[in-house]
Amino acid sequence: MTLVEDLHAALGAKGVLTGRDAAPYGEDWTGKYKTQPLAVARPASTEEVSQVMRIAARHGAAVVPLSGRTGLVGGGAAEGALVLSLERMNRVREIRPAARLAVVEAGVILSALHAATEPHGLTFPMTFGAKDSAMLGGLMSTNAGGSNVLRYGNTRALVLGIEVVLPDGRVLDAMSELHKDNSGYDLKDLFIGAEGTLGVITAAVVKLVELPAHRGTAFVGLDRLDAALDLLNRLQSVTGGAVEAFEYMPEGYMALHRKLFPEAQPPLADLHPVQILVEVGAATKDVPEKMTEVLAAMLEDGSLSDAAIAQNAAQRAAFWKVRESAAELAFHCRPFVDSDISVPVDKVAAFLEAYEARFPEIDPGAEALVVSHLGDGNIHHTIWPKRQDPEVLDALRALVEEIVGELRGSFSAEHGIGHSKQATMARRKDPVAVSVMRAIKSALDPDDRMNPGKVLPPL
Amino acid sequence: MTLVEDLHAALGAKGVLTGRDAAPYGEDWTGKYKTQPLAVARPASTEEVSQVMRIAARHGAAVVPLSGRTGLVGGGAAEGALVLSLERMNRVREIRPAARLAVVEAGVILSALHAATEPHGLTFPMTFGAKDSAMLGGLMSTNAGGSNVLRYGNTRALVLGIEVVLPDGRVLDAMSELHKDNSGYDLKDLFIGAEGTLGVITAAVVKLVELPAHRGTAFVGLDRLDAALDLLNRLQSVTGGAVEAFEYMPEGYMALHRKLFPEAQPPLADLHPVQILVEVGAATKDVPEKMTEVLAAMLEDGSLSDAAIAQNAAQRAAFWKVRESAAELAFHCRPFVDSDISVPVDKVAAFLEAYEARFPEIDPGAEALVVSHLGDGNIHHTIWPKRQDPEVLDALRALVEEIVGELRGSFSAEHGIGHSKQATMARRKDPVAVSVMRAIKSALDPDDRMNPGKVLPPL
Repeated sequence: MTLVEDLHAALGAKGVLTGRDAAPYGEDWTGKYKTQPLAVARPASTEEVSQVMRIAARHGAAVVPLSGRTGLVGGGAAEGALVLSLERMNRVREIRPAARLAVVEAGVILSALHAATEPHGLTFPMTFGAKDSAMLGGLMSTNAGGSNVLRYGNTRALVLGIEVVLPDGRVLDAMSELHKDNSGYDLKDLFIGAEGTLGVITAAVVKLVELPAHRGTAFVGLDRLDAALDLLNRLQSVTGGAVEAFEYMPEGYMALHRKLFPEAQPPLADLHPVQILVEVGAATKDVPEKMTEVLAAMLEDGSLSDAAIAQNAAQRAAFWKVRESAAELAFHCRPFVDSDISVPVDKVAAFLEAYEARFPEIDPGAEALVVSHLGDGNIHHTIWPKRQDPEVLDALRALVEEIVGELRGSFSAEHGIGHSKQATMARRKDPVAVSVMRAIKSALDPDDRMNPGKVLPPL
Repeated sequence: MTLVEDLHAALGAKGVLTGRDAAPYGEDWTGKYKTQPLAVARPASTEEVSQVMRIAARHGAAVVPLSGRTGLVGGGAAEGALVLSLERMNRVREIRPAARLAVVEAGVILSALHAATEPHGLTFPMTFGAKDSAMLGGLMSTNAGGSNVLRYGNTRALVLGIEVVLPDGRVLDAMSELHKDNSGYDLKDLFIGAEGTLGVITAAVVKLVELPAHRGTAFVGLDRLDAALDLLNRLQSVTGGAVEAFEYMPEGYMALHRKLFPEAQPPLADLHPVQILVEVGAATKDVPEKMTEVLAAMLEDGSLSDAAIAQNAAQRAAFWKVRESAAELAFHCRPFVDSDISVPVDKVAAFLEAYEARFPEIDPGAEALVVSHLGDGNIHHTIWPKRQDPEVLDALRALVEEIVGELRGSFSAEHGIGHSKQATMARRKDPVAVSVMRAIKSALDPDDRMNPGKVLPPL
């Protein structure tokens, strides 16, 4: 029997797509990658995933696990490979309010998990622009971050346990519900962020937190970035660390947003060198009140130029919409050089200064867009070159890498390596670290069938 | 040249101990393990650690990395092995207050790091009884927990980056200072908690947090455990999660403490079924005030039987001393069966009920001691059997394992596996997980020279 026939026998007609039906699974929404998968398997249970993996092993087929397909680095490119889509594994298996945890399958959409936990007064505290499409499986495979990392950490910090189907079909039960568990090596955090190159994460135990009963959301205009960091520190101090998000958008970001979304009501009347979207959340209303007091004091003493506080849910949503349009802004014009870097939190300004001083040397006409999870040291930037020859694009990429290297930052803060960052990985990652990663990959996937050609640069 | 001659040539006389000088490094303070190391290497720099590892590789010598030697599971047993002591690598290399981080070597003592960061108004928020001896290297090797995990997480959550010397002497530079870094597999969390079986952690970048300007510390007496969990939830809610520690000591613990330390002033006049040591910390004084209000309200409505609030540093220290005597209490009488288990936070009462109901069936005269990091679901317990034959000890161990298994808990919450939990690991850990761990161990330490005979059960 062929691979497809075997899959049909195991999963039924609903479980297998081929040809034109499979094609969309080989494309990503950035439009950068168009690949043709061999077929798509759509298992509906862990047992079925295990069967798919055994069948793929028997046929020596490469397997690319996919869930919401919102990745930005080509991690789902699947030319000639069997796509294993987790989209039918979309059950929230259990919510345990007293233990503050939920048991979810990999195909659960992030915003669906938010909706499922909300009636319990709880939430899974991760959010980002693609929340209505991104699925938990992808969040885990990429160790997703987003806008609330400052308070709650990234995916690794929010996942207690996972279930993984290994390349040979065995099921690894690491579905811990525990906050302390030192029984051997940390396999959970190895599979999380491995981008599907070591196995398929099929389910997880995730942490829930109390849904803040009282929120404060403000859009603030300032003259300088150091005043923004001062604002962050003051807010953290008076609120006891209740700042959930602290998002930086410079003048150019706001100007482009106004141009592309002219119908949107701007949060602040004027453009400022620095805009911050800040949000605090707590069980008591004194916390947002304290935020308002700090903003009022800083407006009074001139440290802030302007500030608007969301008065209702619609206004809060409108503030967030400005920030969450970042991907649409970045990709509205092509070609572009996009990056997702991080530096130590005391070096964000140094990065931006170096970068803005040096990219015009390569391409004086290039334009840039910056948006940053400032409290994490995570900066997303996009350059639209004026001179569009490949050498200029390469030089712009190399410049970012160089500055990041000087500041001991990372060339991939939250999007991962996938396909598009492999060359950078080969140039910039500690070679001893890469060699240890290769040893682990060979040990767990000796035939190199799991999402091949991703994460680790070609030898 | 012999191994010892090679080490002498590389490290000088100060760097190598043999014979009687080496003997103390083969013993642990619990007195359970007395082993004779081949020799002790005491490198003073990463480069020297690398040399030691190259020399050991050349001679095919087993290497046992050691730092403060406060472990409880025989992880440092070193019969016939070369001990690599990190004690001379005791520099705090850097403190960066603005970035809230410190760069430390593996031989820095935990309380010395506290002392070094305090003048900056910052702290490394981990604490436990052995803080004046335990070193950062051991904390990392065992993914140490302690009393502040509830608020700040365990060692993995508090370490941003590490430096590791591999079994062949290569140096892995994963000294990230970043809060977001998705550039390949999570090697940091693999080496943390590996108990020295994959390599030697020589240095780390650790997170610092603002030292709470205002603390509230209370010793509370209650009738029932569920009332204690209600207290925890109320305090978390009104303080915005400012509870740093929530430690449970039952009546038997307090009674034994009074017996062994008759000179100590008891925090509460009477014994209660449930005693809780609770501590909150914040930048503002309203947080401890809120704790006081909650305690007053619960005393008023009868949910609490008694409560004492520390009025000064000496009283706070006295409260903590009761809790931090746990190890002395547990080990005051031999033989004992000690455990360090965790269950989901909603199953602590179920564990204790099952355990107290069932151990007398095995040994009606056995006595037990319980102390718990209640907010983490982590319970330390000790049984002193009346019938001291090995079968009774084994049956008592098996009972704990069985109840933990039923509740999906862990047989090792924070102390690790070392040597003493290997049999349990073989019986109780998911065999697929153990096989994945073995594959990783073989890939990174193919000659099985790193802390051999620890963590992974013998095949």
